[in-house]
Amino acid sequence: MLSLQKIYKASEVLKGVVAKTDILPASKIFCDNHIYLKTENLQSTGSFKIRGAYFKISQLSEEEKKKGIVACSAGNHAQGVALGATKNGVKATICLPEGAPISKIQATKGYGGQICLVKGVYDDAYAKAIELRDKYGYTFVHPFDDEDVMAGQGTIGLEILDEMPDADAVVVPIGGGGLIAGIAYAIKNLKPSIKVYGVQAEGASAMYRSFKAGKIIPAEEVSTMADGIAVKVPGTNTFEIIKQYVDDIFTVTEDEIASAILALIERKKMIAEGAGAVAVAAVMHNKLPEKGKKILCIVSGGNIDVNRLSRVIVRGQINDGRRCSLTLRLLDKPGQFSEVAKVLGELGANVITAYHERSSQRADINTCYIKLELETRDFEHIGEIKLALEKAGFKIIMEDY
Amino acid sequence: MLSLQKIYKASEVLKGVVAKTDILPASKIFCDNHIYLKTENLQSTGSFKIRGAYFKISQLSEEEKKKGIVACSAGNHAQGVALGATKNGVKATICLPEGAPISKIQATKGYGGQICLVKGVYDDAYAKAIELRDKYGYTFVHPFDDEDVMAGQGTIGLEILDEMPDADAVVVPIGGGGLIAGIAYAIKNLKPSIKVYGVQAEGASAMYRSFKAGKIIPAEEVSTMADGIAVKVPGTNTFEIIKQYVDDIFTVTEDEIASAILALIERKKMIAEGAGAVAVAAVMHNKLPEKGKKILCIVSGGNIDVNRLSRVIVRGQINDGRRCSLTLRLLDKPGQFSEVAKVLGELGANVITAYHERSSQRADINTCYIKLELETRDFEHIGEIKLALEKAGFKIIMEDY
Repeated sequence: MLSLQKIYKASEVLKGVVAKTDILPASKIFCDNHIYLKTENLQSTGSFKIRGAYFKISQLSEEEKKKGIVACSAGNHAQGVALGATKNGVKATICLPEGAPISKIQATKGYGGQICLVKGVYDDAYAKAIELRDKYGYTFVHPFDDEDVMAGQGTIGLEILDEMPDADAVVVPIGGGGLIAGIAYAIKNLKPSIKVYGVQAEGASAMYRSFKAGKIIPAEEVSTMADGIAVKVPGTNTFEIIKQYVDDIFTVTEDEIASAILALIERKKMIAEGAGAVAVAAVMHNKLPEKGKKILCIVSGGNIDVNRLSRVIVRGQINDGRRCSLTLRLLDKPGQFSEVAKVLGELGANVITAYHERSSQRADINTCYIKLELETRDFEHIGEIKLALEKAGFKIIMEDY
Repeated sequence: MLSLQKIYKASEVLKGVVAKTDILPASKIFCDNHIYLKTENLQSTGSFKIRGAYFKISQLSEEEKKKGIVACSAGNHAQGVALGATKNGVKATICLPEGAPISKIQATKGYGGQICLVKGVYDDAYAKAIELRDKYGYTFVHPFDDEDVMAGQGTIGLEILDEMPDADAVVVPIGGGGLIAGIAYAIKNLKPSIKVYGVQAEGASAMYRSFKAGKIIPAEEVSTMADGIAVKVPGTNTFEIIKQYVDDIFTVTEDEIASAILALIERKKMIAEGAGAVAVAAVMHNKLPEKGKKILCIVSGGNIDVNRLSRVIVRGQINDGRRCSLTLRLLDKPGQFSEVAKVLGELGANVITAYHERSSQRADINTCYIKLELETRDFEHIGEIKLALEKAGFKIIMEDY
């Protein structure tokens, strides 16, 4: 059973091992409330996962420690377990699906974990981990549905009460539910006046739907850039605690997540991964009933693959009306291109790329196409640009992505 | 004249106005020394510039304040002056070259600055600012060559002595020299045992060459992604102080800067602009004579345009051997593409893009080309991949960018 005693114990055990992360105001992320950020993306291993993993491993018996542990993850849990095991002097084997990003495999290795790459997807890696547990007597470290893991994550709740006791609400990303279960348990047992809200990605909302239905409803499919919280089956232990202590759960779209990541980069100079940005996304997009209140968002992790980061930035710009793609049809005669450039220049649209296509199979013999990527100010600006181009005689045949 | 008294005064004036930014260890940025970061990228306005600008404006006479101020900048100085003026209740006009990124124009407006967009480049905007000064009696706020501005930046030196008195060296980006002049003056007058080093981009190294020559040598051309320090003419006041107090100046290449930005993103989840990353670039690439010492890098700003950020990330990956581009020639017959894919799969290279080109004017009638962008582990891995492809009979006709 999870208990305050266990969370306080975890807090003692974690002293000197994990950082007591800063809480930063984010007054330039404008919305109906005042946003504050608990920066677990700046935590050791780049996410909160080290808390639960380290505490869980520290509580094993000497015999269990000698035998070693096994875990299964393509992401933050892998890194948390690897470092947690190394710091406890325990051997860890981490099963990863073979498609995992190279950067995450390298990071897990770097923390001292033994890597077991498994053909297939997450479920195959999980099956392999269970096989190794049974074969070698390893202890399996579950990513969320474990009371010691929850207690470790719950230490964040204690830090919040210590650093920002006047918070009106705390908003927490939910995948399997370990993070919010720990935090909600700590806060609601110590200061129940603080609201605790959860956030899931719309494309991976099993806990949201289970919470609303009052019983566990697994998802058939999950699809979200927030891979850290793309969980099909909510935890049974975490679900019970969430049902009892969490005030409400909201969902956010992929576009809302991308806008939040972009806002954190531009306004706070800070990297969050998709899962780490969902709480900010929910508050930015005014999903909460609160207005004018102090809202603390857990930025749970920052381990986003940089290849993906570039795409997310572009998506966030498009959502904010700060970038648009237009394809124009123009006559294949001299001067047309310069005419387009003139209109754009006058309206202050920066051209990012221009692709002039004459030989397309789509094109009539006398027309050609130009595909433009523009940096713009906002949606109003895009409207002005489109109007001016059409007034100058160019036909817009495609826009956006 | 710059004096300790003036720097201490600036420190008093700036209390409650600017943040005393954190110093963070960056033990995962591996090099011959231990790196620490003074995070001025997390400062209000996204750079240290608010310090000098606010203090300068606060020291104006009541009459000067009533008339207003004018400045010229496409970047951080614009935002610092705009906010510094607003906070002092003074009207500010900021001249910007019209090609400035929309995001920077918007930010300057957001801080309450009146924008004056000037046709042409920086020099034209500067001429316009001087014209406005003469016409309206505005006070011109110089970005660096001013003792009040230097005193404001020098408050960073006092904070370093307070927060990390055991630093062995402090490494500071140099453009015009205002930041390092203030910091070096404070540190060398209070604790001369701490080394103070400057860093410039190779493509904008006027102060470096002036320092080595013992006299000011302006640059004819400047070209660097570190636009915040792309200064042609070093300050005469800053030069005198730098000559006296700075231990040495180093330069870094564009590739070294890109690697440093990428390292800060991946290992510290933090955004630095080009100018903000040059000190880290110098230490990462072991330009300093020190080994095994505690080195504090000033991360001076984080205002990088997100459109540029994506390109820098790619460049940083290429420099680290974590991304490569290969063009292969293959016979135009079935099964060739799958053969290539098999080799790549076996070696664990992730394909980012593959562009198969048959109709190129370069191609013989029986051959075609495939251009691959790969995610790789390191240069050794790239070598293995090339060898395996050639062994399988594919000719590599181009590589890298």
